[in-house]
Amino acid sequence: MTRIISRAEIDAALPSLDLMEVIEAGFVAYSADQSVVPPVGELLMPNGEVHIKYGYLKEDDYYVIKIASGFSGNSALGKSPNNGMMVLSSQKNGDVLAILLDEGWLTDVRTAVAGAITCKYMAPNKVKRIGIMGTGIQAHLQLEYLKSVTDCRDVLVWGRGAEQTARYERTMSAHGFQIETTLETADIGASCNLIVTTTPSHIPLLNSVDILPGTHITAMGSDTPHKQELDSAILRQADIVVADSIPQCLERGEIYKALEANTITRSELRELGQVISGDCSGRDNDEQITVADLTGVAVQDIQITKGIYEAL
Amino acid sequence: MTRIISRAEIDAALPSLDLMEVIEAGFVAYSADQSVVPPVGELLMPNGEVHIKYGYLKEDDYYVIKIASGFSGNSALGKSPNNGMMVLSSQKNGDVLAILLDEGWLTDVRTAVAGAITCKYMAPNKVKRIGIMGTGIQAHLQLEYLKSVTDCRDVLVWGRGAEQTARYERTMSAHGFQIETTLETADIGASCNLIVTTTPSHIPLLNSVDILPGTHITAMGSDTPHKQELDSAILRQADIVVADSIPQCLERGEIYKALEANTITRSELRELGQVISGDCSGRDNDEQITVADLTGVAVQDIQITKGIYEAL
Repeated sequence: MTRIISRAEIDAALPSLDLMEVIEAGFVAYSADQSVVPPVGELLMPNGEVHIKYGYLKEDDYYVIKIASGFSGNSALGKSPNNGMMVLSSQKNGDVLAILLDEGWLTDVRTAVAGAITCKYMAPNKVKRIGIMGTGIQAHLQLEYLKSVTDCRDVLVWGRGAEQTARYERTMSAHGFQIETTLETADIGASCNLIVTTTPSHIPLLNSVDILPGTHITAMGSDTPHKQELDSAILRQADIVVADSIPQCLERGEIYKALEANTITRSELRELGQVISGDCSGRDNDEQITVADLTGVAVQDIQITKGIYEAL
Repeated sequence: MTRIISRAEIDAALPSLDLMEVIEAGFVAYSADQSVVPPVGELLMPNGEVHIKYGYLKEDDYYVIKIASGFSGNSALGKSPNNGMMVLSSQKNGDVLAILLDEGWLTDVRTAVAGAITCKYMAPNKVKRIGIMGTGIQAHLQLEYLKSVTDCRDVLVWGRGAEQTARYERTMSAHGFQIETTLETADIGASCNLIVTTTPSHIPLLNSVDILPGTHITAMGSDTPHKQELDSAILRQADIVVADSIPQCLERGEIYKALEANTITRSELRELGQVISGDCSGRDNDEQITVADLTGVAVQDIQITKGIYEAL
């Protein structure tokens, strides 16, 4: 009865889904208190870690449990560090309807889709140049998914080394972008008005003095209390600061760091679901600086899993 | 690469395992601080609930995540209330090695095996009569697994109604037991010196005045702060009180209730793994009254899952 869905079946189903719509609906439900999302389970081991995210939408047929592991040593062996699965069950009777053996892939996809959603609601009207911080999987995926929400194809990428940026340039040029590369973080702020940060940095990479008026920044690299990509002064400078989940961002990510540094207050924060639903604005004019802090919310996992199950 | 193991394969593999040995080793590791078992994850829904237990032994190749759901309304539809799975992964690189679609069955089995283990270490030398409180799945399984640790086949079962006790008598007689039935809880204490309580009762069923010298009681029905099967005075009366997990029993079950009632103190408690390893005694002579409180520990899930995977 339980349907086992392979990575190949998942890949085949993904293009048929309107992922933006599905995940936007998840954020709206989350911000409207129409979801139940308990605290994340965590298992730490000498070689890796596992996160268990789970929950459900209140007016729905399903609940979802996501198991996602990261074993960083795998990369040196030419093996993906990520693994895991999504388990979809019936809220009515507990039947396990499907196990999606996505090996962590759907987490990557739903994270990139959330980046595109923030851009859709918060980017300036005219994106002159896209700045990407980082050269890893999310640096690729975030840009790929931005295609549907902006016409801009002019991109500046920053990375830690010329080898990484050259590889990024090759890959993403093939996707129809004009890619320039830099090893100076300040170059990103100086020429880009839509910036996505995707690194695991523990020290700020972007400084407030470099940010142009009218810029939107989506910071998705920091998802712990220790990681930080943005100088906290950027969040003071910003006219609008949006969290994917206010409770999570009080404990991790850029917003956590800025609250610690007293550059913003809790009351200024808006939640992505409120921006999508229209309860709050994500941008009022093309001079504002806006920041979105994404830490990843279980409703994204619930919605993408449900979408694939129903598409198959 | 991930092996999907069906309920039928699990059933076929179980008889080849020495479950007592496997699960005893788990309890010993747990009590020796050789396991990592984070707090249980819980998801509550209008129709049911899900518990997620997970962890690993430190000197081992695997980690295990158990998903176990209970939807009590299923019974009225002739459907099992229980469902779920065990996920076995590599501690080295996160590979998902196997998913055991046990539908909650392995939780039932490992719970019954734990009952047999407590009996092995704590029952009096001469078991005169076994008393079973309850007529559900655990009432059946606990008795079945006791077969390997006692020669006694004389059983008195208590249930809430004559229909339930008659059905129990029929089923367990076929397993080679002489079953008598009663609807009076006091009859159990008055004639049995090995008692297993398996009910979801919220009020004490056994009273201290009815318990014979030399009796061992395994209480496995209460696993929440609200359930209780034993009058707390029984734990004061007992010479030895053993918890499967002291941290868990401080928050739920009979020991929690007795601590609240001040009939025992924290310092008296022994842990099952210490009794198995010989660090503590489970019984010193045949006059002592002993109590074991079982709430279920993730090491049981880890060990039974690993055992089946390796047997296949």
